[in-house]
Amino acid sequence: MRMYDILSKKRDGKELSVEEIRWFIRGYVCGDIPDYQASALCMAICIRGMNPREITDLTLAMAESGDQVDLSPIHGIKVDKHSTGGVGDKTTLIIAPIVASLGVHVAKMSGRGLGHTGGTLDKLESIPGFRIDLSREEFFRTVNTAGFSVIGQSGNLVPADKKLYALRDVTGTVESIPLIASSIMSKKLAAGSDCILLDVKTGSGAFMKTKEDSLALAETMVKIGENAGKRTVALITNMDRPLGRKIGNALEVMEACETLHGNGPEDLREICLAISANMLFLAGKGSLKECRKMAEKQIENGQAFDALCKMVEAQGGDSSFLKNPEKFSKPKAFLKVCAPQSGYLSKIQTEQVGEACVELGAGREKKEDSIDYSAGITLCKTVGEAVKQGETLAILSAETMEKCHTAETLFRKAVTIGAEKPFPQPMVLARISKDEIEKFSHKRSL
Amino acid sequence: MRMYDILSKKRDGKELSVEEIRWFIRGYVCGDIPDYQASALCMAICIRGMNPREITDLTLAMAESGDQVDLSPIHGIKVDKHSTGGVGDKTTLIIAPIVASLGVHVAKMSGRGLGHTGGTLDKLESIPGFRIDLSREEFFRTVNTAGFSVIGQSGNLVPADKKLYALRDVTGTVESIPLIASSIMSKKLAAGSDCILLDVKTGSGAFMKTKEDSLALAETMVKIGENAGKRTVALITNMDRPLGRKIGNALEVMEACETLHGNGPEDLREICLAISANMLFLAGKGSLKECRKMAEKQIENGQAFDALCKMVEAQGGDSSFLKNPEKFSKPKAFLKVCAPQSGYLSKIQTEQVGEACVELGAGREKKEDSIDYSAGITLCKTVGEAVKQGETLAILSAETMEKCHTAETLFRKAVTIGAEKPFPQPMVLARISKDEIEKFSHKRSL
Repeated sequence: MRMYDILSKKRDGKELSVEEIRWFIRGYVCGDIPDYQASALCMAICIRGMNPREITDLTLAMAESGDQVDLSPIHGIKVDKHSTGGVGDKTTLIIAPIVASLGVHVAKMSGRGLGHTGGTLDKLESIPGFRIDLSREEFFRTVNTAGFSVIGQSGNLVPADKKLYALRDVTGTVESIPLIASSIMSKKLAAGSDCILLDVKTGSGAFMKTKEDSLALAETMVKIGENAGKRTVALITNMDRPLGRKIGNALEVMEACETLHGNGPEDLREICLAISANMLFLAGKGSLKECRKMAEKQIENGQAFDALCKMVEAQGGDSSFLKNPEKFSKPKAFLKVCAPQSGYLSKIQTEQVGEACVELGAGREKKEDSIDYSAGITLCKTVGEAVKQGETLAILSAETMEKCHTAETLFRKAVTIGAEKPFPQPMVLARISKDEIEKFSHKRSL
Repeated sequence: MRMYDILSKKRDGKELSVEEIRWFIRGYVCGDIPDYQASALCMAICIRGMNPREITDLTLAMAESGDQVDLSPIHGIKVDKHSTGGVGDKTTLIIAPIVASLGVHVAKMSGRGLGHTGGTLDKLESIPGFRIDLSREEFFRTVNTAGFSVIGQSGNLVPADKKLYALRDVTGTVESIPLIASSIMSKKLAAGSDCILLDVKTGSGAFMKTKEDSLALAETMVKIGENAGKRTVALITNMDRPLGRKIGNALEVMEACETLHGNGPEDLREICLAISANMLFLAGKGSLKECRKMAEKQIENGQAFDALCKMVEAQGGDSSFLKNPEKFSKPKAFLKVCAPQSGYLSKIQTEQVGEACVELGAGREKKEDSIDYSAGITLCKTVGEAVKQGETLAILSAETMEKCHTAETLFRKAVTIGAEKPFPQPMVLARISKDEIEKFSHKRSL
């Protein structure tokens, strides 16, 4: 086999065989195939696309490029969840306790925040003592005893994705559904769960800015998952505003606790119930409607909150911070952002709000940057609400007033106040499962 | 400026500005832009194409990437000729003496053979004493006194093309009209002549296999030349059989001499007269018809042959070999290839004949390979001629009989004998000049 022929084929829009795809991934990971050939192939895939068979073969080849986690020491059905990333997205801290408290196990390897999106690991590490570097045995034990566990990615998981992603990042080949889908799904497949729930964000704060692109990505990923023998469902959820009212690591842990106590903001609660219901459904716990009822009940009866406390303790964290959030250390500087005029909050440019959080110290610009867990933004108003001139829109918090002022400029640019109340948008825009794809497959093309 | 943005633009099929193209070429040549970004851009250009403005800007940026030859020390009008490469293509040895003998100067930098195509430098070096490494002053003096000169490329001419071509060769991005056209024309522009005649080969032995592709390439190159202020004409010529009857370095010098004596094969004579007439026309020597007559006369009166001898002597070669071709050293082994059946020679796969020549030692597989000047193929029959079973089709010559036998297998595969006489093809299929492009531009797209 020659890379030249593979490149020529994809350049001309032809289909690559499973052998060609496997040969490329193996050769690239071991260094036989140089970056300049891999980047040319990524560009050809970006422009020419791949059919579902090629995308599945690429994903499987990537998943098999390194270690693959064997979750068999964990009892029962394991359901994984993946979010394509957003601002204020603390859903893992809410949905994992809900489903775990109903006996559905979540063995989750999560990531850190980068750029305008936050990471679950950073949020959890704002709880004093919390460890994300469990050994494989500790990880399994935590899931078996607490029902779920969230750790950092360890071992040599999907080296093909690490190498390819770094290359795509500098060659203008990130925006490609086959490459995005295979990157996400190869990691989910290697992580070893039985079922996968995908939360595909759409809107100004999401990677996919349009509903059309989000649907195409979701369909592609569901197909890959099902082709690989995993029950997979995707929800398209709204990210044209930050999720919930709090953005920043400790702030988001607090809001997750409020939601688990039944007092969270409506948009966050809605998304979490939809995700939980679908995860329970994937695990065979009943109809979607029944599963939703079960999830609601676990919030009401406090068992979901208890599950979160149990997991935090199992991973060395001090769960008294969850019960008494005032124990979290307070930021040194606060700044109220007031409305410059009266009207309705009609738009929040979510990406810019995420960038404001990075300025406040709540996120990272580069991988090496450290994080101020107490920093962040509390939204007093969100999209669709009426505001009066001078009323507080948000409270910014950071270590210094200087950081607050820098973030304020970004935040003000992100917010639009209009004369009319904007049309309310649903939080869950679509649900994609194998059955729906089969029904609608003649209508859409990838 | 960021390479990421340039890559994203071309990936999405957008137009690159002159600044972006110049910035890329400068950055790539100096090493600031790595191969993996350049290869991704080449792939995007391959698939998305470039408009005429972009192609001209790319060509000029490449031409300006290194030294540019100033031919002003040479008197009169300088006309350059470029062939896209073929098998048995000894036209330079015929057309340059013809036009030089009429006062039109040819200051040509030529190349060596690689793969199935031969190179003019190798053919000339089969003449004992011939030097291709003249100093710039010797080169100018030779053109001024002998009317023309052929030397190897020297100095730092178009380093952007050297680097890009090597990269394209291993990334499946050779087959792209914008990239081929800019590669050829950047070298022609840097070489400094006033007018350019392009011989674009089409058919089984050519780089462009179809007439359509050849036309598109020819049009693109003529546009670039004219946009850069050089009078440019392209001829599309037939390369679905070897040109003439002799292939191999000394053999081709002999056939060039025969043609200059008026005794060459008809196909070769026809192409050479068409090219010469067009070069004279570009130099303003008269109408195309008049120029053709003038070229014919220079063969009849022997002045073109004299011009070849004069140039060979000026470059240190022994011109007695041209006058007495039997002086060329004879190959050690000969093999007659006989017709396996009677019929008409209906097809010669030119590329395979070129490969048979490489086996015989007349060409190179790798740049470092040495050449046997006396080796090659003499066609006793060519396309369209009747053959009887057992009649000699060709004579193969090499240093050993073993090489002859290896080449014979390839040669036999290349030749088809059919029952019917094939429809005769013209040798010059089309002529492309600025005027014709303007006339037909609404009919074709690049």
